[in-house]
Amino acid sequence: MLTLDNRLKEPLYLQVYRQIKEMICQGDLGQDYKLPSTRMLARTLSVGRNTVETAYLQLCSEGYVESKTGSGFYVNKLENLSNNPKSIPAISTSKSQLIEKDHRYNFQYGKLNNNDFPYKLWRKCINSILATPEAALMTAYNDKQGEIDLRFEIMKYLNQSRGVTCVPAQIVICAGTQQCLMLLSQLFREFSLEIAFEEPAYDGAREVFVNSGYNILPIQVKNDGLNLRQLETSKAKIAYLTPSHQFPSGALMPITKRHKLVNWAIQNNGIIIEDDYDSELRYNFRPVPAIQSLDKTGQVIYIGTFSKTLAPALRLSYLVLPLPWLAVFKHKFSNYNNSVPWLEQKALAQFMQNGQWERHLRKFSLIQKRKHDKMLETLHLLFGNRVRIHGANAGLHILLEFVDKDEATLINQADAQGIKVYPVSKYWFSPKNYENNMILLGYSSLTEQEIVDGLTLLKSAWFNEETRGRT
Amino acid sequence: MLTLDNRLKEPLYLQVYRQIKEMICQGDLGQDYKLPSTRMLARTLSVGRNTVETAYLQLCSEGYVESKTGSGFYVNKLENLSNNPKSIPAISTSKSQLIEKDHRYNFQYGKLNNNDFPYKLWRKCINSILATPEAALMTAYNDKQGEIDLRFEIMKYLNQSRGVTCVPAQIVICAGTQQCLMLLSQLFREFSLEIAFEEPAYDGAREVFVNSGYNILPIQVKNDGLNLRQLETSKAKIAYLTPSHQFPSGALMPITKRHKLVNWAIQNNGIIIEDDYDSELRYNFRPVPAIQSLDKTGQVIYIGTFSKTLAPALRLSYLVLPLPWLAVFKHKFSNYNNSVPWLEQKALAQFMQNGQWERHLRKFSLIQKRKHDKMLETLHLLFGNRVRIHGANAGLHILLEFVDKDEATLINQADAQGIKVYPVSKYWFSPKNYENNMILLGYSSLTEQEIVDGLTLLKSAWFNEETRGRT
Repeated sequence: MLTLDNRLKEPLYLQVYRQIKEMICQGDLGQDYKLPSTRMLARTLSVGRNTVETAYLQLCSEGYVESKTGSGFYVNKLENLSNNPKSIPAISTSKSQLIEKDHRYNFQYGKLNNNDFPYKLWRKCINSILATPEAALMTAYNDKQGEIDLRFEIMKYLNQSRGVTCVPAQIVICAGTQQCLMLLSQLFREFSLEIAFEEPAYDGAREVFVNSGYNILPIQVKNDGLNLRQLETSKAKIAYLTPSHQFPSGALMPITKRHKLVNWAIQNNGIIIEDDYDSELRYNFRPVPAIQSLDKTGQVIYIGTFSKTLAPALRLSYLVLPLPWLAVFKHKFSNYNNSVPWLEQKALAQFMQNGQWERHLRKFSLIQKRKHDKMLETLHLLFGNRVRIHGANAGLHILLEFVDKDEATLINQADAQGIKVYPVSKYWFSPKNYENNMILLGYSSLTEQEIVDGLTLLKSAWFNEETRGRT
Repeated sequence: MLTLDNRLKEPLYLQVYRQIKEMICQGDLGQDYKLPSTRMLARTLSVGRNTVETAYLQLCSEGYVESKTGSGFYVNKLENLSNNPKSIPAISTSKSQLIEKDHRYNFQYGKLNNNDFPYKLWRKCINSILATPEAALMTAYNDKQGEIDLRFEIMKYLNQSRGVTCVPAQIVICAGTQQCLMLLSQLFREFSLEIAFEEPAYDGAREVFVNSGYNILPIQVKNDGLNLRQLETSKAKIAYLTPSHQFPSGALMPITKRHKLVNWAIQNNGIIIEDDYDSELRYNFRPVPAIQSLDKTGQVIYIGTFSKTLAPALRLSYLVLPLPWLAVFKHKFSNYNNSVPWLEQKALAQFMQNGQWERHLRKFSLIQKRKHDKMLETLHLLFGNRVRIHGANAGLHILLEFVDKDEATLINQADAQGIKVYPVSKYWFSPKNYENNMILLGYSSLTEQEIVDGLTLLKSAWFNEETRGRT
């Protein structure tokens, strides 16, 4: 039964809500189970009826239970959660996350390993910023484009690491890549409402433009990136790209093609949005310079993020605008306040000024390279030529392509062994462009040993062989 | 001349940039002054040429200097900064801020007083969160609607203080009010592209919808808020309002009119966006319940913020969505990551759970009430019936209306005495609706004594009387 603890910081209704939710998710309370009345449960737990009601309403609004007028609260059928138009699944913790058991190994993309964030240094930076007289700026609306010292540091870093040429005035600090794109979707509204996207592409980027009323023109991705011919014959004047490690396919666009792409932009008065989301992470080969570095006419918008290399929970990304668009930006957004907390911006600026960012990045990349190498080595050893690997040598994920297995089967077979692997289908704009034979594996949250153990189990899951004893 | 200090954390190019900018702003380097060549200055300062070039380019992109090809860098005429199409004034620190001398008294709206932020408690919250095992979530993308404990605390608070009824599932944590509105502008795109705005209204809110392609329908504001008749005869299905302290006029919408407004929404299947931006700050009278609290059919979107009561630099606001729109929200934004840093959300949740928020708010409101009362008392004493005061008894600002003075004159006369007061004109969508005879005074950043001293100087500035000795 429910047990409440007054000494916990967690409010009582949150305790009630959490415990009932867990019971539902674990199947302890089955479909159509009638919850005790709010009056009764309140009396049993010695809490106010409000406490119970709040918990029930939250469960209702997330679709776990249903309120039948005059009769009470009943547990919903969980499998129907997303199909039931009346219920509203929590986008917070998604349905699948809630219902699934914990996995033994989770090849999640985007999550970093807890050991990789420099907690001590970060706390030091925050405390030292809060101790300066400048901390008075906490009580003000600050620089609309972001703190100038952070922009200077990003400029230096981009110039050294990516060949990006800019001044701080061209940089806008944003609360994540999607917020960069929200601003761009407003910036380009009068210019064009059609945008070319790689097919497949990061769905979260595409949806920002869909939700802003843009028409999406999917352009096929080849081994060397975007199909340029197809872009040229499209009506697009704006193209969103991940040229250095195409997401999710992992394709790398070579330098010659980058030049051609810039020429396309010049000839069509077009715009290239270059999302260089994991550019810091290149293993075993030299990085190709950013397209922005080839652009002399101001046609490339560059986007970077600290989510893949420092911490996604910081919500810190940036735009680099070419001068012609900077003028439009300033005109349109002169009244927009910056979205990133001042304290966080200053902490990051200090982290970069102290040389801590450089050291962190060197160490972090090395750790990721080791994981990447271990992943590849183990895949070759265990799977041989039964799978094709896409997107190696960079970033934090790879794709596995299969000859005779479909995505859903692969995910289910892995799940049965307690391994979580991820679908690729959602990255396609048109499902017909996808052969439905791939899965995505992220490795940044796992240790090297976990990667080996997880892949070993996957082999047994997919190819039905007992290999656990042998590795 | 320039002096650089290697021991400072500030990068060298930033030191060069800042010092030249200051010299230009202070008039030490006049129009058409030719800056030393990058080679020469680099040699003089014993720094790399890159350092100087970066500083010059930044000054260029902000419009302080101009590069004449082959000839060098020249100081621009500052007054022309915003008229010169080639120059790009920094939106960061706006032109006026840069050129103006420091004011003796600044009646800025939005800035709080440094003494009002609980620095120590905030640092404690952050450090204690970073010390918990839960801090591992720094390396993850977290709850898309915001941290559940923060949403619970906001729910409790809203219910107690504003009569707002909701569950945490209806709350979305956002990075400032404008980010709330960015999401809403995407949410309502298929529903209607016309939106009624109070006239005058917060320009930063209106611009989000303008930039999203909405058609703005300005609705006159009367002493009791929005002109309901005008709203009814407009084509609007969406209305953005600040009913509890209309910005900037300060009008308060009474309860009966709130009921009528809800009826308008019901009859027209309309949406009310209720921006309750400073609802915590009510002096000398009981607050009127939020419109959201009267809404039984799910037609009110409620927006709140921590900018006016805790710190604008936190960039923390929230949406409360009615259930029907929550479903659409979840559908459209299922892939949108939350924009507010995890650490900040958790710190605020802890601050609220500990009862510190309640204590802070009680103290903060009392301080603001004292300032407000001092402001009103002094105004009555010094200005008698030569000005009309709008928007008293709430918030952090008032408007002064004059019989025979126009806005520009008022601002210039104040400026001549070293006092900064603010224009109201920009809040009107159609300039013809404004009689051009008001100014805005914010008082939250000043002390009570500064308020008295500033107003005394203002009297002498506006009515040309020497009153300084007399108060």
